[in-house]
Amino acid sequence: MSDIVLPGPFHSLQWMGSTDTLEDSDIVIVGLPYDGTCSYRPGSRFAPQAIREASYGLETYSPISKKDLENIRFYDGGDLSFPFGNRDETLAIIRKNAQAVVTAGKKWVGIGGEHLVTLPAVEAYLDKYPDLAILHFDAHGDLRDDYMGEKLSHATVIRRVADRVGPERLVQIGIRSGPQEEFDWMHQHRTLLEQIEQVPIGREKLKHHPVFLTIDLDVLDPSVLPGTGTPEPGGMQFTELMSWLMAFKGLNFVGADVIELAPDYDASGVSTAVATKVLREVLLLL
Amino acid sequence: MSDIVLPGPFHSLQWMGSTDTLEDSDIVIVGLPYDGTCSYRPGSRFAPQAIREASYGLETYSPISKKDLENIRFYDGGDLSFPFGNRDETLAIIRKNAQAVVTAGKKWVGIGGEHLVTLPAVEAYLDKYPDLAILHFDAHGDLRDDYMGEKLSHATVIRRVADRVGPERLVQIGIRSGPQEEFDWMHQHRTLLEQIEQVPIGREKLKHHPVFLTIDLDVLDPSVLPGTGTPEPGGMQFTELMSWLMAFKGLNFVGADVIELAPDYDASGVSTAVATKVLREVLLLL
Amino acid sequence: MSDIVLPGPFHSLQWMGSTDTLEDSDIVIVGLPYDGTCSYRPGSRFAPQAIREASYGLETYSPISKKDLENIRFYDGGDLSFPFGNRDETLAIIRKNAQAVVTAGKKWVGIGGEHLVTLPAVEAYLDKYPDLAILHFDAHGDLRDDYMGEKLSHATVIRRVADRVGPERLVQIGIRSGPQEEFDWMHQHRTLLEQIEQVPIGREKLKHHPVFLTIDLDVLDPSVLPGTGTPEPGGMQFTELMSWLMAFKGLNFVGADVIELAPDYDASGVSTAVATKVLREVLLLL
Amino acid sequence: MSDIVLPGPFHSLQWMGSTDTLEDSDIVIVGLPYDGTCSYRPGSRFAPQAIREASYGLETYSPISKKDLENIRFYDGGDLSFPFGNRDETLAIIRKNAQAVVTAGKKWVGIGGEHLVTLPAVEAYLDKYPDLAILHFDAHGDLRDDYMGEKLSHATVIRRVADRVGPERLVQIGIRSGPQEEFDWMHQHRTLLEQIEQVPIGREKLKHHPVFLTIDLDVLDPSVLPGTGTPEPGGMQFTELMSWLMAFKGLNFVGADVIELAPDYDASGVSTAVATKVLREVLLLL
Amino acid sequence: MSDIVLPGPFHSLQWMGSTDTLEDSDIVIVGLPYDGTCSYRPGSRFAPQAIREASYGLETYSPISKKDLENIRFYDGGDLSFPFGNRDETLAIIRKNAQAVVTAGKKWVGIGGEHLVTLPAVEAYLDKYPDLAILHFDAHGDLRDDYMGEKLSHATVIRRVADRVGPERLVQIGIRSGPQEEFDWMHQHRTLLEQIEQVPIGREKLKHHPVFLTIDLDVLDPSVLPGTGTPEPGGMQFTELMSWLMAFKGLNFVGADVIELAPDYDASGVSTAVATKVLREVLLLL
Amino acid sequence: MSDIVLPGPFHSLQWMGSTDTLEDSDIVIVGLPYDGTCSYRPGSRFAPQAIREASYGLETYSPISKKDLENIRFYDGGDLSFPFGNRDETLAIIRKNAQAVVTAGKKWVGIGGEHLVTLPAVEAYLDKYPDLAILHFDAHGDLRDDYMGEKLSHATVIRRVADRVGPERLVQIGIRSGPQEEFDWMHQHRTLLEQIEQVPIGREKLKHHPVFLTIDLDVLDPSVLPGTGTPEPGGMQFTELMSWLMAFKGLNFVGADVIELAPDYDASGVSTAVATKVLREVLLLL
Repeated sequence: MSDIVLPGPFHSLQWMGSTDTLEDSDIVIVGLPYDGTCSYRPGSRFAPQAIREASYGLETYSPISKKDLENIRFYDGGDLSFPFGNRDETLAIIRKNAQAVVTAGKKWVGIGGEHLVTLPAVEAYLDKYPDLAILHFDAHGDLRDDYMGEKLSHATVIRRVADRVGPERLVQIGIRSGPQEEFDWMHQHRTLLEQIEQVPIGREKLKHHPVFLTIDLDVLDPSVLPGTGTPEPGGMQFTELMSWLMAFKGLNFVGADVIELAPDYDASGVSTAVATKVLREVLLLL
Repeated sequence: MSDIVLPGPFHSLQWMGSTDTLEDSDIVIVGLPYDGTCSYRPGSRFAPQAIREASYGLETYSPISKKDLENIRFYDGGDLSFPFGNRDETLAIIRKNAQAVVTAGKKWVGIGGEHLVTLPAVEAYLDKYPDLAILHFDAHGDLRDDYMGEKLSHATVIRRVADRVGPERLVQIGIRSGPQEEFDWMHQHRTLLEQIEQVPIGREKLKHHPVFLTIDLDVLDPSVLPGTGTPEPGGMQFTELMSWLMAFKGLNFVGADVIELAPDYDASGVSTAVATKVLREVLLLL
Repeated sequence: MSDIVLPGPFHSLQWMGSTDTLEDSDIVIVGLPYDGTCSYRPGSRFAPQAIREASYGLETYSPISKKDLENIRFYDGGDLSFPFGNRDETLAIIRKNAQAVVTAGKKWVGIGGEHLVTLPAVEAYLDKYPDLAILHFDAHGDLRDDYMGEKLSHATVIRRVADRVGPERLVQIGIRSGPQEEFDWMHQHRTLLEQIEQVPIGREKLKHHPVFLTIDLDVLDPSVLPGTGTPEPGGMQFTELMSWLMAFKGLNFVGADVIELAPDYDASGVSTAVATKVLREVLLLL
Repeated sequence: MSDIVLPGPFHSLQWMGSTDTLEDSDIVIVGLPYDGTCSYRPGSRFAPQAIREASYGLETYSPISKKDLENIRFYDGGDLSFPFGNRDETLAIIRKNAQAVVTAGKKWVGIGGEHLVTLPAVEAYLDKYPDLAILHFDAHGDLRDDYMGEKLSHATVIRRVADRVGPERLVQIGIRSGPQEEFDWMHQHRTLLEQIEQVPIGREKLKHHPVFLTIDLDVLDPSVLPGTGTPEPGGMQFTELMSWLMAFKGLNFVGADVIELAPDYDASGVSTAVATKVLREVLLLL
Repeated sequence: MSDIVLPGPFHSLQWMGSTDTLEDSDIVIVGLPYDGTCSYRPGSRFAPQAIREASYGLETYSPISKKDLENIRFYDGGDLSFPFGNRDETLAIIRKNAQAVVTAGKKWVGIGGEHLVTLPAVEAYLDKYPDLAILHFDAHGDLRDDYMGEKLSHATVIRRVADRVGPERLVQIGIRSGPQEEFDWMHQHRTLLEQIEQVPIGREKLKHHPVFLTIDLDVLDPSVLPGTGTPEPGGMQFTELMSWLMAFKGLNFVGADVIELAPDYDASGVSTAVATKVLREVLLLL
Repeated sequence: MSDIVLPGPFHSLQWMGSTDTLEDSDIVIVGLPYDGTCSYRPGSRFAPQAIREASYGLETYSPISKKDLENIRFYDGGDLSFPFGNRDETLAIIRKNAQAVVTAGKKWVGIGGEHLVTLPAVEAYLDKYPDLAILHFDAHGDLRDDYMGEKLSHATVIRRVADRVGPERLVQIGIRSGPQEEFDWMHQHRTLLEQIEQVPIGREKLKHHPVFLTIDLDVLDPSVLPGTGTPEPGGMQFTELMSWLMAFKGLNFVGADVIELAPDYDASGVSTAVATKVLREVLLLL
């Protein structure tokens, strides 16, 4: 496992309850502080550290899933270090680390950063699991083919993912903003679940595949999570997101990420508290 | 149309997608940065400019009404300039501009500012449409006969409007705060709709009239829109407001305003994003 | 009544509508600006003063309960003064004042401060009403037996209360975070009401007892009240809390407190507006 | 003294150390929460209350002037109540109160509010002291003859004062922003002192007159006092302002005001702490 | 001049007093909202728009240089639009625009954005003025040869500039933070002026060259300008910076930029007011 | 050294450049997140963590002292964990840890927290160095004999220290606020240096003693460091504090602390940046 280049505990506060070493873990948390293609409000680079701090105010027991984090073996590998301004090198660093984690038989849990960080993780998984499927929570489809001339952007990332896994293995929930073409695309490919009653459709699509779960936190209503780059009114309450997640329990989740918290836009700290609790439930779901 | 004294594009950022000239528009957006009778927390004067900036982060397509702003011809005429401290002159300036817009056969969409800016616009419309009716969303009735001795105030504005159009042509939604007399008045005149099931009652009242739509954004719950002068707990979610608006589709809306955003009270920017999206839906409704 | 040591009007702004003297009141509001055992984010010490200021922006009439504060005789006794760093002396000061108020036949309404301030008030009531029961709204059970080695803490306060009144006279609502043992304890003692349909169970338990109502404001969702020490996603909307309170109308409420507002964590002022309205409803309920 | 209509202690927190009644005082502090002609950033209406609260964190002893507030008899009369939106009535209310204070042989200390509140106080003083002189600290000359067509504005107030007392009885310090005409006017009338070495020139002008001291807090550098409506880089440090004030000790000060704090623009609370300390020194100087 | 691709007035608020067209101007202001290589706190992308808004609160007359902006013919060309995440394309866009401005015989005044935006402007000038010299105000030398492996970064930009113009044509002022090698480099090449008495040394170096002036606003003390990416305690007061600028009056300034304001880190708005006044003085100096 | 109970790197982010183990260090940094006796604005408990984060944005080289942190062997032992609400137990925990550090022949550098944390550290030193002297920077004398009846408080801590070391071994700098008795005490015992020219007096007092340096950051002007519990206008600029510290170079400093940063009161992050740089200079001075 010598390829893993995670910075480790000496350079970063660790999520409360992290195992002491990577070796004795089943899940590896990795901070991905990149927000370089963000066109509107940057700041998701500060999310991993903010979430770690908030983890010390979180109960390990979840009355939602009735499980306890203390029974999960996860290791917090710290934040990856990126050359700011160089997108392609940044993506290569993420991919290399994700490959090392996947190869070691552990589950990757990325903390974004912006949504583009999902792409190299998915690519790393596809090497091992060519039939990987995607469960995607978001306010935005992120389905543009290019954005301001760029193929690799937070606004194109799920389109790039769909290029690789195929739309038939993509399930999308919560999308409520975008150009008409994106809604047409989702309609054509039937990727979007609009109500929780449609969960069985989604489970059917995902049940025979290893599943990567990617949660863009702006799927929540901005009243619940104001601290994000592109707040979109009209989203889910926290308990609704929990209901959706619980409804997918039992799938073969092999990895996940939680992205687009921008903690500095919410001075009350509530957005970070929400993100931390979402991450706890993701860890318990895996 | 030489009477129109709008400042125009050189002195103000324009709402994204504004037509180049007033002439080639059907709707005219006008910023009304006045908060001079505000007794509690001023700052709605900053709303028009904040909304224009946020408009550049907004998708033009609405999955709510399934329409696109690109198909609407509207012109952003900039902010009117007021002599601070002189309420009566301010109202006269608004009225003069609204008259010019109405006379030119275009629809006025005011961005407040405080609620008093609605009065001169309504007066301008009454010159042309003596049978004008009002659809009013608000947390407060604004039905006091006077406020601290003043007849013209944000707290009396709808009473002044009712003096002119008559309570039978006034429909109110969302009112949840005020002295007992205001609730008695609304009860007596049956102006208040309390549940969305009562929409048919409202449509019946409005359907044979040209309708002016006035939305005080504090009709939304303060969790959704904290940036307002007088936050009143217990209001609508964003999706509820959208449902109400969609339920009135098809009426003969001749003008509108969206008022009482005070952007500086919400550092997260979410309130402004909400207001901008409400305004998009208002433009699409007209 | 010479034992009452309230600071009185000259050292503190008074809640709008306070009677001029303590003597001509039925209810006594007392500010309890103590947050000394808070382990996470202090600042509830600033709540009483913030609420008083916000009271001047509040309507006295409540369309929720259809009553008016002007018909209630309450006296705002100002903030008690505490020796910071000395928890035990602080609790003694509160108990002494609460005893004086209870002895005088008036109702105590404490404004926290942290939740530990409830304990000395309950102790004062138990002297007069040995069969006192407790109605407790909170996100947290506060049922730890000790916290970081301390028996007296915001995290143990309801356990200490239960030691005194017995779990059979405790009704808890809204609890959604804590270690598994606390949930086991609530389950074992059947103290927790999980849905509003269970109100009759709670009324049955409380109806033959004098009841002390304690509302930890974090029972509300952090989107509604971000300004609190330990925000817990997944809580009540404002209107839900109102429905719960209205459902308990008619019980023999002898005292109350409203605690854990930390106003500085919510720069928008909305949290304080919410707390002030909750307090108005509590006064009207008593 | 029955004409004095100050609201008194029951409606307002009082500055720490206020005498119990107006009668046993030599100085009367009055809050003037008016910012209605403010053209840029309102919010000075919140200053009087913020300063009162901060007064409880202030030492009464001043090592600057080596005096103690405990030896000064001042009464805090609370905030005057104004009809928002009606500038002329507001000025009339201030003038009436100032006349009552001056007639009673007491010294008026106004807490603004915007600078226009100085005008009615000066007018009230001129009735009793026709030879009144003015000592004016400010970043702006406030010498426009009209502002957006208005004769009475925060930007014209000192010109209106000069109309009444004559430029030869006006001493200005700290002015560093304005149109060229204002600098020409100050040069022509020699009202401006540019360096502390010129204090003797100012004392010579003022020494045979009763003096009204008006301090616009934006005379301080915005790093010292960011919380003000129109921050002007390049101003005084706090200790420089103290040196200027100490240099004028011994003049016959008959009244004063301290204006243009806008506390909400400085979340750190430092601006309010600065204003409160300036006010302490003003009280000790009188 | 058809190569100029500035967005123009319809897509952006213009700096107060901009000429109507580019043709009738001598100076062209261009917003450069790029902060992509920022390794610490992003947000300088918001500076150009914030400065334009603040320009409407600025007096056109400067008592510092005793000149008036009304006598300067400048055109605000709006913000350039960049493909976020693609640094090299961003630099190419800036260079192309700067070349068009320089070729047209006008002076370029860039508003950053981060310091890297200076490099393409300098390159554009070198085409026309091969003997260009640089006057550089900054807290940091920005003299690293590479930063996290990248040759093009906010931390290497002046080294890249020095590569092109040579250290003998570089004058640096205010540098107070960096690795020892940067201080050694400045010492070896005598680029740093440490006290204002050394201005003659700087003038001697610059007087026979066209000069590009680049001001990183963090040269100011963070108390004066907290809103910047990398605040460095121990910097200049505002009046000190003005003294330095005035001391270089009369040089042949052919272009300039003012960079690294990050307005959102200073909610008081003071940092933006400072930056706007610095820019006014730069315009008057040119 | 088995008595040292520092939490170590796994539970806390470490200051940039910390040695890997305590054993290979000469200096030990310890976070002391206690603010329990704070009577005004709490929040210094958040300082140690904020400073550690900011340390990653700090250059290790100091152009002020011309030294580099990389040549200093220091270990960051993390934050001590305290039982909130229990002051005496908190002080005992600090004392025990400080004794272990001192006994091991290492230098203690505390990061407050409030000023009371200095007392147990000084007591620990006195066991080993009975002739310890104190160099004290502060806006406040902290010389009250008791505060609200309490002997142990942030407002009495230096008096308690003076009780133990004697006023003749105490040197105080920057004191500018307090009751007259404190100024009388300082005058009587000649503890206060008022100008930098008096440094030789201070050096004379300290030169034959081991010296503990305690810096209350509110010695700086609130414009430089707004993020503190009790801001006192009229303090030092950053460069002045540096000059004072450099003037004491060469004394036998055996320990130090830097206290009273309250980072949340300064959203710009500048206060934390200032505190971090002060701490760097303290480490280099030791």
